[in-house]
Amino acid sequence: MDWVAADWGTSNLRLWLMDDAGRPERRIESDQGMAAIVREDYEPTLLGLLRRDLPEDRTVPVLVCGMAGSRQGWVEAPYARVPCVPPSADAAVRVETRSSRVAVRILPGISQDDPTDVMRGEETQIAGVLQERPGFDGVICLPGTHTKWVHVSAGEIVSFRTYMTGELFALLRERSVLRHSLGGETWDREAFLVAVDRALSHPATVAGDLFALRAESLLRGLGPETAQSRLSGLLVGIELAAARPYWLGQQVAIVGETALADAYRAALGAQGLEASVLGAEAMTLAGLTAAWRHLKETAQ
Amino acid sequence: MDWVAADWGTSNLRLWLMDDAGRPERRIESDQGMAAIVREDYEPTLLGLLRRDLPEDRTVPVLVCGMAGSRQGWVEAPYARVPCVPPSADAAVRVETRSSRVAVRILPGISQDDPTDVMRGEETQIAGVLQERPGFDGVICLPGTHTKWVHVSAGEIVSFRTYMTGELFALLRERSVLRHSLGGETWDREAFLVAVDRALSHPATVAGDLFALRAESLLRGLGPETAQSRLSGLLVGIELAAARPYWLGQQVAIVGETALADAYRAALGAQGLEASVLGAEAMTLAGLTAAWRHLKETAQ
Repeated sequence: MDWVAADWGTSNLRLWLMDDAGRPERRIESDQGMAAIVREDYEPTLLGLLRRDLPEDRTVPVLVCGMAGSRQGWVEAPYARVPCVPPSADAAVRVETRSSRVAVRILPGISQDDPTDVMRGEETQIAGVLQERPGFDGVICLPGTHTKWVHVSAGEIVSFRTYMTGELFALLRERSVLRHSLGGETWDREAFLVAVDRALSHPATVAGDLFALRAESLLRGLGPETAQSRLSGLLVGIELAAARPYWLGQQVAIVGETALADAYRAALGAQGLEASVLGAEAMTLAGLTAAWRHLKETAQ
Repeated sequence: MDWVAADWGTSNLRLWLMDDAGRPERRIESDQGMAAIVREDYEPTLLGLLRRDLPEDRTVPVLVCGMAGSRQGWVEAPYARVPCVPPSADAAVRVETRSSRVAVRILPGISQDDPTDVMRGEETQIAGVLQERPGFDGVICLPGTHTKWVHVSAGEIVSFRTYMTGELFALLRERSVLRHSLGGETWDREAFLVAVDRALSHPATVAGDLFALRAESLLRGLGPETAQSRLSGLLVGIELAAARPYWLGQQVAIVGETALADAYRAALGAQGLEASVLGAEAMTLAGLTAAWRHLKETAQ
């Protein structure tokens, strides 16, 4: 093992033990995300997960992206500000550890003044896209709990915007009165696309269409999977309406897990836009690897 | 005590012991709403709360409105369908009770086919408004967890629409990432009105403005009370955009608790519309009393 790549987010921590050719030898996943631990837990958590793998005789570099660098995380890695290249390892914050078996660096997130916005973690996936597709010029959509739309040009992040679409969907599905009317695993593509189109054309109607899911389930036997797909479509639709300046007439790359990326791809496809899809985890790893290479080159 | 008026909702139960002149002698409030109890609990809950007050020698009529009449409630009181007058006591469902000390009737809710919608409890407040303002012709707005906009004409409920504004606000304030950035009791009227105007003019921007509350709190020290007022304004604003056909150029009466009714009144006022405000509890009681009188007249 040459070094360790780490994506330390709010809910999860993923580690990859990287060989000296830049390939992952092993992948470790844990639920010890920022929300589950306090500051003092970071080092023991990391050492505990790497226990079997750390050599006795040398210090292993660990390069971290994500919420571990936030004020509530391990050590704050102050934001870089757009327009900027995705922060590389020389912008990373060195963490003082008690153990000398690891040398930890946390990559900074990115902020934007107007409209005020922040990201932590996605900048590393964007670096991964630029690695995978050198010279990419266009828009990167990163759907998730807090979906990001990012304008990238000449290797720089120019501007971006965050939409709470995934979190809203989860809250409505699990905590609202709609939870009685939603469920299942099957995606009703048609219901999704009709709802996207409706919300894109008339964003305000989303406000009334939400409770209609409950009413139609009570009075007309609307199925839970159709209702759920329609809810997803309404929320993605109003997001697409708000993010229209980002995607309209642009080259769009979606970075996300398969099902979610497919949904966004279908929604954009219905608007006549053919987006490409890149895997979220692959882009994180590519971004961390690029930052690592830069660090090694700078050190030599 | 002549009879008992009851508003049995999802979260709360309120009882009023009414004298034979139609005035409340005593008011009892309990948290034993539909969500807290099962079917078998309704009768013991009611008898327990009325224990001190029920006479030994006769049966006391109890007239109930609200979610107790839903399928998951005490006994289902099937919906009346618009257009219709607010259901009176002769449309109420008689509940079989073990005890002969109470004679319970539950008022039905109202449904609408297109757009599909339902209400339970608000129809009684609407009956109250028609009692308080005979001949009222216009629109009644009932803000709350599930805000209703209702078109009333010639004594009938013509159409209505439900918006989950209150529930969305509570979910975002208490359960989302925004909870770290919101709080306090003071209403920032200016921040509220600016947000209403923005969401009314450009409903889709709400999708991006939500996370901006978090980002501005992190980067610019946006205060929790201003952030909370702005969130409220964004959600009320998109509701007003969707409900525009209801209020534009109409006579509007708001039925709600003071603070919430004031917020809606201010939002509509900024659009040049002067709405009147009626107390929510007073309208519930007026509606139950009207239904009760009708029942007595019919019985004679």
